[in-house]
Amino acid sequence: MSYGIPRKETHFEVRDVQWSEKVRESFDRQGVMGLIGATLADVWPGGCEIHLSYRAALSQQHGFFHAGITSTVVDSAAGYAGFSLMPVNTSVLSVEFKINLLAPADGELLIATGEVVKPGRNLVITRGDAWVVKGGKLTHCAMMQQTLMTMHGKADTT
Amino acid sequence: MSYGIPRKETHFEVRDVQWSEKVRESFDRQGVMGLIGATLADVWPGGCEIHLSYRAALSQQHGFFHAGITSTVVDSAAGYAGFSLMPVNTSVLSVEFKINLLAPADGELLIATGEVVKPGRNLVITRGDAWVVKGGKLTHCAMMQQTLMTMHGKADTT
Amino acid sequence: MSYGIPRKETHFEVRDVQWSEKVRESFDRQGVMGLIGATLADVWPGGCEIHLSYRAALSQQHGFFHAGITSTVVDSAAGYAGFSLMPVNTSVLSVEFKINLLAPADGELLIATGEVVKPGRNLVITRGDAWVVKGGKLTHCAMMQQTLMTMHGKADTT
Amino acid sequence: MSYGIPRKETHFEVRDVQWSEKVRESFDRQGVMGLIGATLADVWPGGCEIHLSYRAALSQQHGFFHAGITSTVVDSAAGYAGFSLMPVNTSVLSVEFKINLLAPADGELLIATGEVVKPGRNLVITRGDAWVVKGGKLTHCAMMQQTLMTMHGKADTT
Repeated sequence: MSYGIPRKETHFEVRDVQWSEKVRESFDRQGVMGLIGATLADVWPGGCEIHLSYRAALSQQHGFFHAGITSTVVDSAAGYAGFSLMPVNTSVLSVEFKINLLAPADGELLIATGEVVKPGRNLVITRGDAWVVKGGKLTHCAMMQQTLMTMHGKADTT
Repeated sequence: MSYGIPRKETHFEVRDVQWSEKVRESFDRQGVMGLIGATLADVWPGGCEIHLSYRAALSQQHGFFHAGITSTVVDSAAGYAGFSLMPVNTSVLSVEFKINLLAPADGELLIATGEVVKPGRNLVITRGDAWVVKGGKLTHCAMMQQTLMTMHGKADTT
Repeated sequence: MSYGIPRKETHFEVRDVQWSEKVRESFDRQGVMGLIGATLADVWPGGCEIHLSYRAALSQQHGFFHAGITSTVVDSAAGYAGFSLMPVNTSVLSVEFKINLLAPADGELLIATGEVVKPGRNLVITRGDAWVVKGGKLTHCAMMQQTLMTMHGKADTT
Repeated sequence: MSYGIPRKETHFEVRDVQWSEKVRESFDRQGVMGLIGATLADVWPGGCEIHLSYRAALSQQHGFFHAGITSTVVDSAAGYAGFSLMPVNTSVLSVEFKINLLAPADGELLIATGEVVKPGRNLVITRGDAWVVKGGKLTHCAMMQQTLMTMHGKADTT
């Protein structure tokens, strides 16, 4: 990545040849990603990266990215990291997450990444992170631990 | 409240006579509340309630409220619950939160509440909850534990 | 309870007539409860209370109950709250928990309670709390959100 | 380390020349570390590693390390990672943590590590991990995000 975001070197086996297409198609169906203007920058087996450009409509009361918006993109990045490893005819659900806000998300661009730590049959545990870019400088502004559930027998379609 | 959301009977002492005005004024400055269409339904010493009507632009891939949107309104409700008890010339910052998504947020209206559990001088610990209303029926769909920091000497203004 | 610990008035249906016996029998098999000296003070459908008397061997560096010991008893109280509602031929596993330490656990007795919030078929979501008693006065010193998994087809025996 | 536990390559500046001595001395004062038999295997600026050998007295109901015991050693490892970077005349307090139990802690030895992510003046954010060793094979069994508070003006002594 041009921004130099660190990635783990973990290699996971995919269980659905359509892993990339299904993640992209599902992302496009998330109304909220369109509303806030987030884009799916990259997806790989067990990982995902989402970008979000700043505008005032995404701010909290001091003008920075709202913690909830940061959570929204990190939750999605980590969720799609997990979904990329799930077998056919399943969908993904966020069970819970915890996020630490490490620094004010003050910048022009927010980069969220998610990576699978433990791909269980039913529960998938992930980590997520967010960096904010200001004047070319990256600041690590959030980190997340998340639990996902694989919904077997429910394909991720409308 | 007409929706019968449970409230704790805890009574906290306010440290700023402008507690209600400052919360409402700060809420209005959160760009994201305008973007998603959330309204400050109520604020009381140590508590806050936010309402958000459903529209497709707030959805995850199955058409329900996105977990990040639920987090956004619960984080704000719990944050303003804390801010209502903070003294003059301070502002509020979310340090971290953890949210469990108890049920799909499938409904017409999302109601988020926040309540202070422990109002420390620097750290304020809160609980938050979300209910989704569908056809008049309430479902408890999320619960949160949150840590806030009081920023002394920094009034919450632009 | 003589200590006046608050309890929710929620009533859950049990799915195993042996709910009380199986919780007590499982508790007795937890080696660590014997090591630290914790006792199962009470169990009811969807709830559990554990008591732990102070001794220096349970302390952190300032002489209070160690945060890990507080976590141990709250995790067990919330876990057995969940287990009390699980059907026959299952066992219980902690998936994750988050704990806020609200005050130093400085006292003679630690009281931990757990209560079920959402009893799902596979995942059970609970809340836990701890109070420390010093000279007859109770202080709310910790609160937890926890996710449990029901292990179907694996009875909780050695 | 002989066990091949991964470590970040982050380098932090220490603010107390006695960083190593004060961590070791504080660890020795934690009664609970003696009770369970944990040893401080290593401490470095911003990091810490604790070892704990298995015995039945540390078990949950299925004979594995209890989740609370795992939490106890990871909380201490991450707490001392933070304390190693704190200035003179301070002590350390766990504000909150969240732990995911990734696999049953089934083995002869539990290894807990903690590393600082964000060393703020008042709040220090850390990550912790646990591995269980069985027959020479390591399994990543827990991961934690933790918030610490620096208590200024209160040296960590009895």
